[in-house]
Amino acid sequence: MKFGGTSVADIDRLNRVAARLIERAKAGDDVVVVVSAMGKVTDDLIGLAHQANPKPCKREMDMLLSTGEQVSIALLAMAIQKQGYEAVSFTGAQVGIITDSVYSKAKIVRIDAACVLEALIQKKIVIVAGFQGRTVDGQITTLGRGGSDTTAVALAAGIKADACEIYSDVDGVYSADPRIVPKAHKLDTVSYEEMLEMAASGAGVLSMRSVEFARNFDVVIHCRHSFKPADVPGTIVRGEDPSMEDAVVSAVTHDTNEAKITIRGVPDRPGIAASVFGTLGQNNVNVDMIIQNISDAGLTDISFTAPEDDITSVTSALEICLKEIGARTWNIDRDIAKVSIIGAGMKSHPGITAKMFKALAEEGINLDLISTSPIRVSCIIAADQAETAVRVLHTAFGLDQE
Amino acid sequence: MKFGGTSVADIDRLNRVAARLIERAKAGDDVVVVVSAMGKVTDDLIGLAHQANPKPCKREMDMLLSTGEQVSIALLAMAIQKQGYEAVSFTGAQVGIITDSVYSKAKIVRIDAACVLEALIQKKIVIVAGFQGRTVDGQITTLGRGGSDTTAVALAAGIKADACEIYSDVDGVYSADPRIVPKAHKLDTVSYEEMLEMAASGAGVLSMRSVEFARNFDVVIHCRHSFKPADVPGTIVRGEDPSMEDAVVSAVTHDTNEAKITIRGVPDRPGIAASVFGTLGQNNVNVDMIIQNISDAGLTDISFTAPEDDITSVTSALEICLKEIGARTWNIDRDIAKVSIIGAGMKSHPGITAKMFKALAEEGINLDLISTSPIRVSCIIAADQAETAVRVLHTAFGLDQE
Repeated sequence: MKFGGTSVADIDRLNRVAARLIERAKAGDDVVVVVSAMGKVTDDLIGLAHQANPKPCKREMDMLLSTGEQVSIALLAMAIQKQGYEAVSFTGAQVGIITDSVYSKAKIVRIDAACVLEALIQKKIVIVAGFQGRTVDGQITTLGRGGSDTTAVALAAGIKADACEIYSDVDGVYSADPRIVPKAHKLDTVSYEEMLEMAASGAGVLSMRSVEFARNFDVVIHCRHSFKPADVPGTIVRGEDPSMEDAVVSAVTHDTNEAKITIRGVPDRPGIAASVFGTLGQNNVNVDMIIQNISDAGLTDISFTAPEDDITSVTSALEICLKEIGARTWNIDRDIAKVSIIGAGMKSHPGITAKMFKALAEEGINLDLISTSPIRVSCIIAADQAETAVRVLHTAFGLDQE
Repeated sequence: MKFGGTSVADIDRLNRVAARLIERAKAGDDVVVVVSAMGKVTDDLIGLAHQANPKPCKREMDMLLSTGEQVSIALLAMAIQKQGYEAVSFTGAQVGIITDSVYSKAKIVRIDAACVLEALIQKKIVIVAGFQGRTVDGQITTLGRGGSDTTAVALAAGIKADACEIYSDVDGVYSADPRIVPKAHKLDTVSYEEMLEMAASGAGVLSMRSVEFARNFDVVIHCRHSFKPADVPGTIVRGEDPSMEDAVVSAVTHDTNEAKITIRGVPDRPGIAASVFGTLGQNNVNVDMIIQNISDAGLTDISFTAPEDDITSVTSALEICLKEIGARTWNIDRDIAKVSIIGAGMKSHPGITAKMFKALAEEGINLDLISTSPIRVSCIIAADQAETAVRVLHTAFGLDQE
């Protein structure tokens, strides 16, 4: 069971989470819980860091941020013990979440969860700090955004849990963001592939990495609401099987946290794109969509999108490599949004893309970049048109709930 | 160099500490710095813990409190790096401060400071979290009050440092608390034995445990002011040697953080005291002074003093063992103070005790309990008479500065 920062934002909520955990433990389940930092703690720590150093070293940033979850696990253990049940907390380092040494975005390489299994045998509720791990030589790392979900799924795989329940302040996975589309409905089941595409294109319920991990280790994820009764189901994310009804389009997602970077006057010769995106990769920038315009007089333009959080890394990477390759200028456009339609049934239904473009065109929405996968179509549009686009597509693909 | 919570209370002070460290490093010194949690962070965390559980489990308390220093070390590293010098931070667990498993009052059993020496070779300023360590099997522990001083001295011993400089908001060790005795003066040199007696009797500059550690491993301590120029000396604490001038009385100390516990109607037979104080010891209560009154009809009274912080442990220990031994009643008096005179020269000067009692009697100050060591005499008096007593004794023993 994994509870995010909102679910443990204060002592009152911690007590409610504690009660929920004890209820499950008393029902006979072995309970392992992963928690994030309380409410805005991580943001506060980041604020402090930037006061100390506008460009803080990532190793020290991980040293700092990992304290947020450590506070949560200790307080949750105390809250459970107060309600009369045994509990024990472990940091990521203690529980043996071994990562690579890419500070602030570390990847889990191995889990030695022996101490979890041992504590479960002693009938304790085991509390593990999300978002963090350690390198083989004992350096503290954090897993980056969505890291607590990844911790939960990885632990579930490591201890062969029956399921990994991810709790948050939403009921489950929706056909679109219900704040924007009032007629959006909760999905009962979503395949890993659909969930991956949804996470990659803006659905905030689960991080993409955690879904990848779940798919690779066949962990069933159950997305649920933290404070609704235990018999209210959420959305199950699992491997596709023939019993699943493949909706042509299951969901419409949007993401306003990306920025579009355009490099102009790039010499059009082999190896240039490799050089640019190689450098970006070395700087741990998650490049999303890439488009290269046709060449004009031996020069071309390259556009790509990346998370706004990565813009500092993008800037330093481009400053180095553009000088080498001799591009003319580059600029960043933050006023963009990505709108996507996702559905496993898309694979066997041609014409979906055309239908999407038509629906958007009828609303006068201009498409900037387009990218597709077998089960997704994404368009970059102006940020202020994102909500309209989502509503139009939700209706166009028959997702509106009666 | 060790900086306490007041010296790192905010980013501005962290920057000043960083500048001071860099100055020393640039002067050619290898610099290792131990820091406490910032300002009131530990108090805030304790407050949170008590909201979660009025009687928090000590293991989880250590898990919680150790985050305070971890925040400090990361921010200090960032502040140093911003000023252009290399730095690296380590938690107590990472730096190999191995302790026993008495949570909240762990004792250091060993230091594996290999990573400190390695970072020093790389010309980095090494920052270590005070107050914390880990057990051999990786559980996080804290060292209890004054723990950061102990970390500093133990590390200094472990890496064979030339000296251990303890920085705080006072200039050094004074002949009495200058807030109470305006004529108090700073002592240039104090022997370990005197410092131990002073620490045990209320001088807050250094913790007793850190001085014991320093004596056992022959670490020279230099108590200094955090924000005075580097050439302003503080007080050196080191082994006694013939060149030291043995003042009959070096200092007058007082302590208002003790409570007096009196047990009435204790059966006067062998083994009773052993049972009472054995149980208190098992509960990690630091009993200070003990007095047993003469027996009356086979029953006697036992009084002792202990830190007010230990009263919860005292209460639970006494509730158990007094039932067994059949004592009548017991009570706690918090309105007491301990006033002490300390001086290595006392050993060879008889009559000091009488002089002390006379000076106090002339002010109408009643003595409740008395205890002595070869270089110290302590009296328990009413709390509201403590300041008068300190001033009277400071004058009586010729310590007032012209």
